[in-house]
Amino acid sequence: MKALVYHGPGEKAWEAVPDPAIQDTTDAIVKVEATTICGTDLHILKGDTPEVASGRILGHEAIGTVQEVGPGVTSVRPGDRVLVSCISACARCQYCREGHPGQCTGGGGWIFGYMIDGTQAEYVRVPFADTSTYKIPAGATDDEILMLADILPTGYEVGVLNGKVRPGDIVAVVGAGPIGLSAITGARLYTPGRVIAIDLADARLKAALEFGADLTLNNAREDAVAYVQSVTGGRGADVAIEAVGVPASFELCTSLVRPGGRVANIGVHGKPATLHLESLWIRDITVTTGLVDATSTATLLRLIESHQIDAARFVTHRFALEDILTAYDVFGRAADTGAIKVMMTA
Amino acid sequence: MKALVYHGPGEKAWEAVPDPAIQDTTDAIVKVEATTICGTDLHILKGDTPEVASGRILGHEAIGTVQEVGPGVTSVRPGDRVLVSCISACARCQYCREGHPGQCTGGGGWIFGYMIDGTQAEYVRVPFADTSTYKIPAGATDDEILMLADILPTGYEVGVLNGKVRPGDIVAVVGAGPIGLSAITGARLYTPGRVIAIDLADARLKAALEFGADLTLNNAREDAVAYVQSVTGGRGADVAIEAVGVPASFELCTSLVRPGGRVANIGVHGKPATLHLESLWIRDITVTTGLVDATSTATLLRLIESHQIDAARFVTHRFALEDILTAYDVFGRAADTGAIKVMMTA
Amino acid sequence: MKALVYHGPGEKAWEAVPDPAIQDTTDAIVKVEATTICGTDLHILKGDTPEVASGRILGHEAIGTVQEVGPGVTSVRPGDRVLVSCISACARCQYCREGHPGQCTGGGGWIFGYMIDGTQAEYVRVPFADTSTYKIPAGATDDEILMLADILPTGYEVGVLNGKVRPGDIVAVVGAGPIGLSAITGARLYTPGRVIAIDLADARLKAALEFGADLTLNNAREDAVAYVQSVTGGRGADVAIEAVGVPASFELCTSLVRPGGRVANIGVHGKPATLHLESLWIRDITVTTGLVDATSTATLLRLIESHQIDAARFVTHRFALEDILTAYDVFGRAADTGAIKVMMTA
Amino acid sequence: MKALVYHGPGEKAWEAVPDPAIQDTTDAIVKVEATTICGTDLHILKGDTPEVASGRILGHEAIGTVQEVGPGVTSVRPGDRVLVSCISACARCQYCREGHPGQCTGGGGWIFGYMIDGTQAEYVRVPFADTSTYKIPAGATDDEILMLADILPTGYEVGVLNGKVRPGDIVAVVGAGPIGLSAITGARLYTPGRVIAIDLADARLKAALEFGADLTLNNAREDAVAYVQSVTGGRGADVAIEAVGVPASFELCTSLVRPGGRVANIGVHGKPATLHLESLWIRDITVTTGLVDATSTATLLRLIESHQIDAARFVTHRFALEDILTAYDVFGRAADTGAIKVMMTA
Repeated sequence: MKALVYHGPGEKAWEAVPDPAIQDTTDAIVKVEATTICGTDLHILKGDTPEVASGRILGHEAIGTVQEVGPGVTSVRPGDRVLVSCISACARCQYCREGHPGQCTGGGGWIFGYMIDGTQAEYVRVPFADTSTYKIPAGATDDEILMLADILPTGYEVGVLNGKVRPGDIVAVVGAGPIGLSAITGARLYTPGRVIAIDLADARLKAALEFGADLTLNNAREDAVAYVQSVTGGRGADVAIEAVGVPASFELCTSLVRPGGRVANIGVHGKPATLHLESLWIRDITVTTGLVDATSTATLLRLIESHQIDAARFVTHRFALEDILTAYDVFGRAADTGAIKVMMTA
Repeated sequence: MKALVYHGPGEKAWEAVPDPAIQDTTDAIVKVEATTICGTDLHILKGDTPEVASGRILGHEAIGTVQEVGPGVTSVRPGDRVLVSCISACARCQYCREGHPGQCTGGGGWIFGYMIDGTQAEYVRVPFADTSTYKIPAGATDDEILMLADILPTGYEVGVLNGKVRPGDIVAVVGAGPIGLSAITGARLYTPGRVIAIDLADARLKAALEFGADLTLNNAREDAVAYVQSVTGGRGADVAIEAVGVPASFELCTSLVRPGGRVANIGVHGKPATLHLESLWIRDITVTTGLVDATSTATLLRLIESHQIDAARFVTHRFALEDILTAYDVFGRAADTGAIKVMMTA
Repeated sequence: MKALVYHGPGEKAWEAVPDPAIQDTTDAIVKVEATTICGTDLHILKGDTPEVASGRILGHEAIGTVQEVGPGVTSVRPGDRVLVSCISACARCQYCREGHPGQCTGGGGWIFGYMIDGTQAEYVRVPFADTSTYKIPAGATDDEILMLADILPTGYEVGVLNGKVRPGDIVAVVGAGPIGLSAITGARLYTPGRVIAIDLADARLKAALEFGADLTLNNAREDAVAYVQSVTGGRGADVAIEAVGVPASFELCTSLVRPGGRVANIGVHGKPATLHLESLWIRDITVTTGLVDATSTATLLRLIESHQIDAARFVTHRFALEDILTAYDVFGRAADTGAIKVMMTA
Repeated sequence: MKALVYHGPGEKAWEAVPDPAIQDTTDAIVKVEATTICGTDLHILKGDTPEVASGRILGHEAIGTVQEVGPGVTSVRPGDRVLVSCISACARCQYCREGHPGQCTGGGGWIFGYMIDGTQAEYVRVPFADTSTYKIPAGATDDEILMLADILPTGYEVGVLNGKVRPGDIVAVVGAGPIGLSAITGARLYTPGRVIAIDLADARLKAALEFGADLTLNNAREDAVAYVQSVTGGRGADVAIEAVGVPASFELCTSLVRPGGRVANIGVHGKPATLHLESLWIRDITVTTGLVDATSTATLLRLIESHQIDAARFVTHRFALEDILTAYDVFGRAADTGAIKVMMTA
């Protein structure tokens, strides 16, 4: 088959590789019909994650049709169309049993395109298929469903649920790229008082308004802390969601929240940040970090089906699977192309 | 009257000052019968809190008898013996109404010996007396009750409740001074699997065992991360409680917890710490900071009355109120004197 | 002054009574500028609450201007326009300190028009004025604010928050009178998957659709259990909210919820209901009851100001205060008149 | 093999039956080395559960050694000694994924000795073996481990966790049979202020004191409501746990709790109870029901290993497996024999 293979920092190729085969009793082989690119794939290609081996097939999001299943697979069958989640759940370890498969210690967690071959390929081996895939219902399109592989549950779980967004809250979202837009989408489900999007790029702030932000601020030009103070009567935000992954944006979040507020970090960080405990120790702040568990997938799917989440609008560009290198180029130049999510279909 | 007056960094005196008087309708004047010294008082004297004005009477913990009340005070009367909590609650602001008077925006919060004159005096003016004092019941001694003014609710609320200690948890407490011992005391209420006390001083670790730690480690000599890994089968602690207030101990806490774990900061910090988001972003960590609200006072009092909390053992040294300078000396040299809490009585 | 006085079951009169006066240090006297009638007032008039003394002035909802305050009142002053909440909070008792003034043991809770004279009068004495009134902001109308005195927080706190409505949930609301409509309004804040309104009257179901129900069922004609099963794929509702106050509707709620579901009772009941533990014991059901605490008032006010709650549409009829007997007649014949809330203004 | 077979109400026999065999890919066959009898088995024998077919092997608690596994089983192997939990978890359905396998819709839940053949036999087929068994650690005895099959997690999850027992709480446990004793054991983990055991039999109340109750009351002779009022200063219990399964004891629980209190039903009920909504509607009561999920098994095991739960004392009588009919007789006459749990070993 053909697949997008990582060959070390900066190097990738769409090339012929052996077809995947069932290795474990709980595996399935899935023919990939749609996949997408995540900001994390760009991090890997930059060499930020040296644990990714050269030769690895990238990608951790897909829709496809089951071709074959191992003898331990009981709930999906060849012919089923399924969503392949970015999180694999062994379902046996303590983390999985407690609803946190993102931290699976039984061989799951985030493994696709990272520890094992991924989904940017014609076929993919899916471990723990019973608990890591979702059958695709009739009432939603592939565009919408594909957004459930990673971006929608990540913004919702790691941003909105960890941040404990509640009706009436003032929610600051720092970073209006795909993940920030997902956090805005998720926050709206709780009827916040105001969602304030903060970014350095006007184009992304424009997108934020379209995705449901009430207010925007370009912090290349303006002081975000002063702005949030001004629109909250000096109180500060109830929740600040970090959706960039650099120290400055995290530190900004801790400056934006009111006493008793929550800072939910979603960003993938490569460097430590400074936590200003000399002022924060007394302020009843909660800071959370997290990898998605994808346990909200069923809920979000229901809201897509009832048209209460508009998932399709994340998809700004479409390509054939074999044109994935072009897709990477478009996604990698998002500031120019306006790409949010690019979708490749077989 | 006589009172302990702060005269700028390093300077204090037990001297004659005017008696306090009712200023606001919700004030009470309380004759101080017992008070104590907090580590925070030492911070103030070191000059760490420049917002404390020279001339301020120190102290934020007391037991005494009400002498006089303003016309708005309805639930305590002259002659009542009361605990004066370190937290004053206006009861009117949003924070107070939501159960967070530590963040009171109506003139309360932590104000004694900080923003207004404190309790290390013969008399003290107590604002918002109805909601900032507790009548002393028959079934407990003054020693025990005085520990409810600050140290017990602080360890319990900011350490144990924020850290969400649960039965069976592995709880690491970094710092075995008075606040760490209070956190250990509070943690035991939830039947943790193991409480691991970590400190640089063997004498404090010995005290930790007496207060209920199961295991101790001197991190001047041993590697705390390796130790916690070894006693948890490589998993890490469920909860780490910071009870020192320096960057190193906070950073240690973030290294001790397992994925999904909680870091509860109690320490009063004067400097920023480093938050290693490059490794923590993916680990589902929750970090909390906080000032006590003292909302657990009634619960803790009940547990003292039923002898399920041994509060008296915190009091290691006793003095007459007029010997407070000696008491400060003994408390300030805790490493030598073994002082945990010193109690001064009128 | 003139006031609506209860003279025993079935008897009421708009008559001259003495003006109220400050009795306690925390009292305020408020000139009533707008008030309304609650279903509970009709219960009292039917004689369902024999604890209400003859001679009592009815009513527990008002907007007005402060005329005079006792010496213990610090946060409202003569001339302030305020919302008078149906819940009075002493702010001193354990229930108030824990955020449950509805259960106040210090003389508050629901007392207006019940234990003390109420708001359907030209003037009203308001105990605990600091913690039982809210200053009226510029950005909302009296119609909207008045709905915060009781109906909006009741539907939200006792229905939606107790029922733990979450995004994607199937929420059944049994009873589409004013309180059911308030529960629907509150449930929408959490983006439920579907809100199903169930009532015996088509007119009320029509109103339910206008207030945001997705589906309706007249259970005079159709089987509600079968319907909810059919629209949930046999699963049942996640949450059922009882908004009537009779045994049959409560029992229906317990039949509608899925295993693990929540039944939130708002209705005021005069008779016991049957709890079918022979089938429910195994189903992980949570049943809650409750009186409003009004702790959500500030949040709901913020959402009214941002136009995310349309509170004004509850007000279907307007009267002068002196025409209150006519207003009672219109409100009492809601099935004919279509009255949801009637508003009387001075 | 030999097994205890149900032959309709009142009829059971220890008789030869065919050996069980692997049916599904996720099955294991376990040789039973220890089993016990549950009060539920007596209910079945009385005919209270007509859905149990004649010919069914009874029992849902066991320790044993794995003999054979299906091809989908990956985490247990022949030779492993395991605890067989009363709850089978498919790990695939929404309930299992959310941590509620007691409500499993994928073929699990409570099935042993009910829907499929059970554990009172020489061998048992265990569905979903990966997620329904626990490897037995070195640090605990079989007596202790066997109590984790049902009784300990049931008392803890359905009584203590559902009842949200907190430090300092007044906890009333109605019924001091095995399940009530388990609830008392679990409640102690949270350092309640007082545990009050209420039963009709003095012998059971004596056992309750040994298991950690602070106070007892025989409600055949005394008024439980008056007693709880008297020991709580008129406030009522914070939590009442129903551990009998008859209407009177449930109704008593709802009378014992204070406003804001929780009633946690554990009892298996055969008849409806009366819920006095005419008084409870206003009191902020939470009532929960539930089947155990056994998700606390790992936590409870840790506490057994650290000797913080004394599980062995539940076992009052021991028998050889083939003497199970005698064991049933002794367990069935618990009032005379003092049996709490009887243990049969192969």
